[in-house]
Amino acid sequence: MDLDQLAPDVDRIRQDFDDIAAFVDDSQPGWSRQVLSDPYLASRAWVRRAMEDAGLAVHQDEAGNTIGRLAGRGGGGALATGSHTDTVAGGGRFDGIIGVLGALEMVRRLRETGTVLDHDLLVVDFLGEEPNDFGVSCVGSRSITGSVTPAFFDQTDAAGLRLGTALERHGYSPHAMLSGAWQKGSVDAFVELHIEQGPVLERSGTQLGVVTAIAGIERVVATFLGRADHAGTASMTDRRDALTAAAEAILTVEQIGCTGESSVATTGSLEVEPGAMNVVPSLARMWTELRSPSAEWLGSARRQVLDQIAALARRRDIEVDLQWLNDQDPVPTATSVQDVVASAASALGHSWQAMPSGAGHDAAHMATLAPTGMIFVPSRDGRSHCPEEWTDFDDVGIGVHALTATLLELDGARAGAGR
Amino acid sequence: MDLDQLAPDVDRIRQDFDDIAAFVDDSQPGWSRQVLSDPYLASRAWVRRAMEDAGLAVHQDEAGNTIGRLAGRGGGGALATGSHTDTVAGGGRFDGIIGVLGALEMVRRLRETGTVLDHDLLVVDFLGEEPNDFGVSCVGSRSITGSVTPAFFDQTDAAGLRLGTALERHGYSPHAMLSGAWQKGSVDAFVELHIEQGPVLERSGTQLGVVTAIAGIERVVATFLGRADHAGTASMTDRRDALTAAAEAILTVEQIGCTGESSVATTGSLEVEPGAMNVVPSLARMWTELRSPSAEWLGSARRQVLDQIAALARRRDIEVDLQWLNDQDPVPTATSVQDVVASAASALGHSWQAMPSGAGHDAAHMATLAPTGMIFVPSRDGRSHCPEEWTDFDDVGIGVHALTATLLELDGARAGAGR
Repeated sequence: MDLDQLAPDVDRIRQDFDDIAAFVDDSQPGWSRQVLSDPYLASRAWVRRAMEDAGLAVHQDEAGNTIGRLAGRGGGGALATGSHTDTVAGGGRFDGIIGVLGALEMVRRLRETGTVLDHDLLVVDFLGEEPNDFGVSCVGSRSITGSVTPAFFDQTDAAGLRLGTALERHGYSPHAMLSGAWQKGSVDAFVELHIEQGPVLERSGTQLGVVTAIAGIERVVATFLGRADHAGTASMTDRRDALTAAAEAILTVEQIGCTGESSVATTGSLEVEPGAMNVVPSLARMWTELRSPSAEWLGSARRQVLDQIAALARRRDIEVDLQWLNDQDPVPTATSVQDVVASAASALGHSWQAMPSGAGHDAAHMATLAPTGMIFVPSRDGRSHCPEEWTDFDDVGIGVHALTATLLELDGARAGAGR
Repeated sequence: MDLDQLAPDVDRIRQDFDDIAAFVDDSQPGWSRQVLSDPYLASRAWVRRAMEDAGLAVHQDEAGNTIGRLAGRGGGGALATGSHTDTVAGGGRFDGIIGVLGALEMVRRLRETGTVLDHDLLVVDFLGEEPNDFGVSCVGSRSITGSVTPAFFDQTDAAGLRLGTALERHGYSPHAMLSGAWQKGSVDAFVELHIEQGPVLERSGTQLGVVTAIAGIERVVATFLGRADHAGTASMTDRRDALTAAAEAILTVEQIGCTGESSVATTGSLEVEPGAMNVVPSLARMWTELRSPSAEWLGSARRQVLDQIAALARRRDIEVDLQWLNDQDPVPTATSVQDVVASAASALGHSWQAMPSGAGHDAAHMATLAPTGMIFVPSRDGRSHCPEEWTDFDDVGIGVHALTATLLELDGARAGAGR
């Protein structure tokens, strides 16, 4: 097989990106398409049609994952790829989307060139990878890999709606998700193409990233309970101000985030009650996360957050409740897949470098099912989760080509072994 | 006139408090009746009927103030009293309300005892004293005292609605409010009965407060503009996090608030954008106020807030915009009225102490029109602007009795001077 023949048609990819970008929530900035929203549901109908048009046999599972299959010559485990098409509020056009639309273009080129793999090839559009209003993420890939529990569906959004109820309203089945994990051996390898979402590749002028590990994530919702008082009559020493306690906690989290290599700590949101200019806040709730490829650092940082927030709350006579959510341990990718990605990149003449991923991905869950790898392409200015998120389409094409070469090499390995 | 005969009927006052407490926004905690809300509008129709039932001739002016007049024997300037019946979100049952319902009971007792004053007596339910979604307060008393400007009506709420437009929708006239100030000399004295909203009277076991000054207020909305980034891939040193900058500013404001006697500084609310757990915040907006009876302290604190926020924003490479709103200079009350309140309290055998008010009041505006005073009654645990706000009805009765005695003495002073 001549790899050059399988080079993607970049104009066709660009057209797909333009088409899916039309499905947006106009009430929010950027390209917002959050899980279970109307534009998201409409976009997934489009994805399903696009998969069928590319020649895949498509079905949607009980968890809402859209799965396209390209039959191979042999039987046994499949090769799988894919990503997600939901976005964060105010997000961009590439995060996740490149892994689904890139795989579609790969499939079109395989079929156009008459290339038939030994393995079945699965292209998955995973449901809801981004953290959602229910405080969970990677809903689809967690279901496929059997890591959901009944408590998962009892998470509620700000309005008190259960995740399980919300999923049922859209025709998905929490019951089936609890027992619908794919069997071990059903997938021989999983490879996810994604944008880097950071500045490393662009700064070093490197075309591709070979991901060595996916950062673990510890998320916590900290609720500070003080006492509402009139802001003009309660003296500074009499107050139990929930917001000043939260402000101190936010700076504490920031300091802890500065203590580890490739590690970060972020408070992304804060709510205040009652939120009137002339009332001392009685409640402040902050949403915070810690990320690191090092499990040791994560454990230590979590203990520091716990201890330091407890200490400052005690000092301020504030009650504090910490809800740790949705933890994800650091996940090393399979060195066997790393080697194939690196080899494929070199075969195509593209520069590459090994690097960890600070962002979480469906691949982190798929790694529990099969040897898993990831391919990164550069992000302009390292920006992501914002409207300015951008990757040049020539770089998108290089990533899709590398994905194709990687899967062909993984396919050949078994084909070779089987001979 | 035997003052004992004019003692209020505390059960009747309690019934009025129960009746008006039924007008609440059930979607919010406590007794929420914010300006221009449906429950507020309904409650004011009730107030108007209650004024009429008490024997007042009632009209609503173009600013939405409800004004009841009890004709006196003589002509000339009137004596005026009153307060407001709107609340903050999550507020209580006494703040403002005691000044309106207490005056009604006073009028009933004057009529029941056949007591006719020399002056006309005005009872005013001022429109919208509490800070509202448009960032302004004391809408009605500002109109009566001629301190509104065209720019006042251009303030907008979070949805971008102009205050002027909102007022017009409810039948009020910003145009008339600009030219509707009461003439100097139309009021001889204004006295407002109010709860203390702080712990001073309760702690000292004193029945009444004679207010010496009303704290000035400087309000500021500070908007921090950073950059949205993926919370997993943007390193701590690459970030321009708007929320950590705001957190530092909140603690700075708290420190500044601790530097002056009877002075406070409060950040009552904070908004974060985009507000997702995995996105570095691009925008944080905080609502802050400084209060003090000292104009010198207020000016110094304002400069400190400005300088220190500018410095921290510069250090963090964050843009910051400060909008100072709705300033209110400290207002000393008239010593002539203070003396009458103290004399009336003593005549009734009640203990009293002189004290400043940390809260703003309609009286602060009325003081520009006529000699003005305030009477405070104790607040349980010093709590206010919260559902726990409470004053024993016996204390409410003492306050109403003191108001009656004060107005009678003010009435007699002119009657005597005229003889």
